[in-house]
Amino acid sequence: MQGLFHFELIKKDEKTGARLGILHTPRGVIHTPAFMPVGTQATVKTLTPEEVEELGAEIILSNTYHLYLRPGHELIRQAGGLHRFMNWRRPILTDSGGFQIFSLGPLRRITDEGVQFRSHLDGSLHFITPEKAMEIQAALGSDIAMAFDVCASYPCSYEDALTALERTTSWAERCRKVQPAPEQVVFGIVQGSVYQELRARSARALVDMDFPGYAIGGLSVGEPKSIMYEVLEYTTPLLPEYKPRYLMGVGTADCLWEGVARGVDLFDCVLPTRIARNGTALTSWGKLVVRNAVYADDFSPIEQDCDCYTCRNYTRAYLRHLFKAGEMLGPRLLTIHNLHFTLTLMKKIRQAIEAGDFAGQKNLFLKQYKAF
Amino acid sequence: MQGLFHFELIKKDEKTGARLGILHTPRGVIHTPAFMPVGTQATVKTLTPEEVEELGAEIILSNTYHLYLRPGHELIRQAGGLHRFMNWRRPILTDSGGFQIFSLGPLRRITDEGVQFRSHLDGSLHFITPEKAMEIQAALGSDIAMAFDVCASYPCSYEDALTALERTTSWAERCRKVQPAPEQVVFGIVQGSVYQELRARSARALVDMDFPGYAIGGLSVGEPKSIMYEVLEYTTPLLPEYKPRYLMGVGTADCLWEGVARGVDLFDCVLPTRIARNGTALTSWGKLVVRNAVYADDFSPIEQDCDCYTCRNYTRAYLRHLFKAGEMLGPRLLTIHNLHFTLTLMKKIRQAIEAGDFAGQKNLFLKQYKAF
Repeated sequence: MQGLFHFELIKKDEKTGARLGILHTPRGVIHTPAFMPVGTQATVKTLTPEEVEELGAEIILSNTYHLYLRPGHELIRQAGGLHRFMNWRRPILTDSGGFQIFSLGPLRRITDEGVQFRSHLDGSLHFITPEKAMEIQAALGSDIAMAFDVCASYPCSYEDALTALERTTSWAERCRKVQPAPEQVVFGIVQGSVYQELRARSARALVDMDFPGYAIGGLSVGEPKSIMYEVLEYTTPLLPEYKPRYLMGVGTADCLWEGVARGVDLFDCVLPTRIARNGTALTSWGKLVVRNAVYADDFSPIEQDCDCYTCRNYTRAYLRHLFKAGEMLGPRLLTIHNLHFTLTLMKKIRQAIEAGDFAGQKNLFLKQYKAF
Repeated sequence: MQGLFHFELIKKDEKTGARLGILHTPRGVIHTPAFMPVGTQATVKTLTPEEVEELGAEIILSNTYHLYLRPGHELIRQAGGLHRFMNWRRPILTDSGGFQIFSLGPLRRITDEGVQFRSHLDGSLHFITPEKAMEIQAALGSDIAMAFDVCASYPCSYEDALTALERTTSWAERCRKVQPAPEQVVFGIVQGSVYQELRARSARALVDMDFPGYAIGGLSVGEPKSIMYEVLEYTTPLLPEYKPRYLMGVGTADCLWEGVARGVDLFDCVLPTRIARNGTALTSWGKLVVRNAVYADDFSPIEQDCDCYTCRNYTRAYLRHLFKAGEMLGPRLLTIHNLHFTLTLMKKIRQAIEAGDFAGQKNLFLKQYKAF
């Protein structure tokens, strides 16, 4: 059932939990630790697939909830699957839609059977079960599908976290029984909020189901970073060493270093692309709001020693002008820079692990970096 | 003063007024008849300069009025000129700002000295004289600057057309006296509305001033196409054979063929790029509104035998999805297609003139094309 899919563990860091690996899939390899740019609606906003590939992305994430509602998974199936529809030939991971649906708040109702919700687009009523979530992802034809889970919010009482965990476990079992698309694999998602005992319980149950990969869900949902790191600290050791670990929704530079240090292999986050569209650039010293008036006559690039297309060809003054004038090239150029920054950072992290200097490089980076 | 700038007339069509030429400029040659994509705010909307170049554009147009207001011509001068600011290395033609200012309607007041107007951005008061228009264009450092003219609207009485013409003539003289930027040339603009006698008078006066090129202004301002063609018919023969002729603001396929047939060498128009952003594609049979529901499950490209990047890689169904979902890649992919369509059409026109079959190819094209 897993076909060509397997995770090759290349090296383990001696001082931290960092790991170097290669995730083999039928559509190509992913060098881990890896960041997955987000292409919510079958496009990494503003970019062509060739540009995303050239930036070094070996896998992207796309959102089941959005594609189910528009243009509809059956249409994408007819188109020959998501890869063909959007012209992206490398691997795609689809989330299960769970997180988006639970984020709808009062628009959704959870039962043991599944989730009823109203579309944020037209208010239409939908009911998604674990089986349905798998069916949609099979129609999309992603390379990695995610089990349908219940993501507890933060803060969350022990009782509520337990209920969410139990549903997640039972739904994971149901997901495991559904036949995925050919060569598609399914990852389980560990829940349990900030409770060590619940995380352990969730991990044990999912490990018993023998998924080919595991995500850590329910983090980056409002809790302080220190708590996220603590949960990772005790959760990743509970997961099988020879399977990939994916921390969902995390993508700022400091969290990427800290996540890798705690044994995470895969990340995704809308932040680099989203803040690009608001005129904010990522740099090695923190963020730079290029819209600010101070850059009006600043004819230097976003970051002097950055070799991305944007920094090689455009000044802060020009970028600011594009944003002030509402020109689409502005979001596009900053998206290129921010993805370049994030994907290059992952490369540096991999090189540091390979060179046996992960902890040193991490300290060096974080010393000059102002988190936000 | 003209430096390396000169127009080489390669061939004249035997049956029509069509001409094949090469416009030599210090920043490169322009094969005429040519279409100039519009980059109003120092960017051809949604595209990078490399993409515009790859599409075959040898020159672009940028708008003085917009750049004067934002980011300001002094800032662009500081940046090293418009080419460096926006990263476009081939020639740029700047309009004089006249047309945009006159389009402001009640927001502007014309005197013999110049035009007072309020910014459409912040309502601030400005006064532009012919000398000022030249100074702004010199700061921008365009390769071809346009004289500051008075564009009569349509319909326009003979008296009003006469007044506009006389001001245009006197302003052209004032523009001619201003020192342009190094290697920058200035084109005069023929006015006279739809009155043959006035067009003749305007042309004679401007030809006496010996501009290195001439534009035909005041067309495509609401008059029927038949009237535009008639005005061109009697106006282009009044202009020097060995200088380029530029028809301002025209760029639909039928008008391009008809303009070339009447001796026009240069065109510009926002239409291909503007309708792209509204989800409308140009094709050899007319326009295709890709947003329409009929294309929801149409997995063919916009045009089957089009070899543009968009048609080689994306279906109508995907493009429609991008527009319905408000994704920026949609406008970008259609802009690529529409500029490819228009620039390829100009190439076909040049090849037809070269092959001695311009009239035949024109008939063939227009027979299957539904004008809009």
